[in-house]
Amino acid sequence: MSAILETEVEQPNPEPILQLGLAFWASKTLLSAIELGVFTHLASGPLTAKELAPKLSLHPRSARDFFDALIALGMLRREGDRYANTLSTDTFLDRNKPSYIGGIFEMANARLYGFWGSLTEALQTGQPQNEVKSGGNLFDGIYSDPNRLQGFLRAMTGVSMGAAMAIAEKFPWSEYKSFIDIGCAEGCVPAMVARQHPHLTGGGFDLAVVQPYFESYIAANGVADRVKFHPGDFFFDDLPSADVLIFGHILHDWTLEEKKMLLAKAYRALPEGGAVVVYDAIIDEERSQNAFGLLMSLNMLIETPGGFDYTGSDCMSWMHEAGFRDTRVEHLVGPDSMVIGVK
Amino acid sequence: MSAILETEVEQPNPEPILQLGLAFWASKTLLSAIELGVFTHLASGPLTAKELAPKLSLHPRSARDFFDALIALGMLRREGDRYANTLSTDTFLDRNKPSYIGGIFEMANARLYGFWGSLTEALQTGQPQNEVKSGGNLFDGIYSDPNRLQGFLRAMTGVSMGAAMAIAEKFPWSEYKSFIDIGCAEGCVPAMVARQHPHLTGGGFDLAVVQPYFESYIAANGVADRVKFHPGDFFFDDLPSADVLIFGHILHDWTLEEKKMLLAKAYRALPEGGAVVVYDAIIDEERSQNAFGLLMSLNMLIETPGGFDYTGSDCMSWMHEAGFRDTRVEHLVGPDSMVIGVK
Repeated sequence: MSAILETEVEQPNPEPILQLGLAFWASKTLLSAIELGVFTHLASGPLTAKELAPKLSLHPRSARDFFDALIALGMLRREGDRYANTLSTDTFLDRNKPSYIGGIFEMANARLYGFWGSLTEALQTGQPQNEVKSGGNLFDGIYSDPNRLQGFLRAMTGVSMGAAMAIAEKFPWSEYKSFIDIGCAEGCVPAMVARQHPHLTGGGFDLAVVQPYFESYIAANGVADRVKFHPGDFFFDDLPSADVLIFGHILHDWTLEEKKMLLAKAYRALPEGGAVVVYDAIIDEERSQNAFGLLMSLNMLIETPGGFDYTGSDCMSWMHEAGFRDTRVEHLVGPDSMVIGVK
Repeated sequence: MSAILETEVEQPNPEPILQLGLAFWASKTLLSAIELGVFTHLASGPLTAKELAPKLSLHPRSARDFFDALIALGMLRREGDRYANTLSTDTFLDRNKPSYIGGIFEMANARLYGFWGSLTEALQTGQPQNEVKSGGNLFDGIYSDPNRLQGFLRAMTGVSMGAAMAIAEKFPWSEYKSFIDIGCAEGCVPAMVARQHPHLTGGGFDLAVVQPYFESYIAANGVADRVKFHPGDFFFDDLPSADVLIFGHILHDWTLEEKKMLLAKAYRALPEGGAVVVYDAIIDEERSQNAFGLLMSLNMLIETPGGFDYTGSDCMSWMHEAGFRDTRVEHLVGPDSMVIGVK
């Protein structure tokens, strides 16, 4: 090897930069596949490219590249010359299954992908870049439009499913008898927790317009006898009481003052010995590992006037300030952790 | 463990789907960092968040999340409370270094990110989604505007650097005396090959408007005495002759008929024993592994009326049809491979 070659061996490879800078190709390919219903169509059984393309109204030019890219990305598999869902995509991306989590991707495809195109402006102005760029409040806009509300609630189910399953498994539920999920959306967490722990009675607290979506989802999960809806607005109302109160992907939407106000309301609503469970894509203490949590915080910049994500220590200090005595952080799944505070 | 838990252990995790579907967050974060000049500013030395944010005109709200996300994505590192480039980002993303490859990301940020937002429409119509959606030709548009031309040529250098370094190393250059890169842009490949092999004389063939950019880049790389520019249009002109003719990220821009025409012109221009080297993000034979190659083919859908990427076997069969006798495929780096045909 020449001297030049030896130098080059020590030089870093540009490929990781290239992969990351163009990763939006892979991401948008999955989003379009969900939009087109690829996984819903294949849930009935494997199909050849010639059979599948017309069902999605695809032009023949690039249908095969599209399907093969989904294979290379691990989202489809091949059976001979037919395309098939993986176990994961069949479970989570078939619109006809109750385990569907595609709502978050429908929202990402229809809204966030475009809004993130203005990330630079967001970083330079500190202002949201979504529909409310011209004033107003994201949640007011969503909650006043039934179509957008349903999409948003389903999106929240999508982004919460993994954490819901992990909370059902990892929290010491045997020590408690009741729980209420604050800002419950469709009720993904109450459904998963109640299904796995028949001794618990539970509930979900959210704005009154959410009630029919919650009750439908809870009934589909077979736990309507033990899981009830509590209508309310956590800015104006006290929180309902239960042994455990859960805030899932809620605190990161709000400013520091609003976060502390919500924890103080939870403290007041809990019995002695009760617990608050806060989960989000909790940022690691060094703020150097949980890329998803840090990017979620940038998503709060895109979506809200003052929301941000935070570390476990941040959250535990707010809990102590609210009066909670014992606090701890426990990892759930992927980027999500829960912070537990005991009154 | 309960029966429910055992069932869940067998179920796939939704997290990989969530990561991929929202991967555009990470990608756009890097693109904005390059747009803002993060890596160029840090090339002078590490800076604290308070020092760096005003240089980029960042609002204080999310500057730290932005920098920490770049750390978690492996694009920055921390020295105490100061942010610093990695060896890779310092080498490839500092605008003031000749090794800068950020042109591809400037183009992705300003053009492709938005155009890919219309991927679903592209898949259903088979039509490009870029500036020429209303008619015209991508390359005509780029080559007639000096600012866009410079950006495009730099982008091509960015996307070619890894492959150029690998071709300089892996092709048996000692058996040949001369080479010309067809569709050379700034001349990344000629520069890397000539720098490493002093016995070679080389050149680049591209439209006449490219000449000043090529000559500037080649001079900056110190090989202007051995590397010359050959102006021409490969649709209307014969190709210049040399022992080795290279097509780098060229064939995928064009239709099957145009690809075959270019290989036939190369065959005519080569001496007996000469070689054609075609490199692209060559798709693996099973079309199930090289996601980047398959996505690049979808990028050709977004950008061109009839371009597409292809497997090594596809390319070797076109070479045989053009008259080449020995053909082989050799991996270069990351998603790129070269297909070699000997006359």
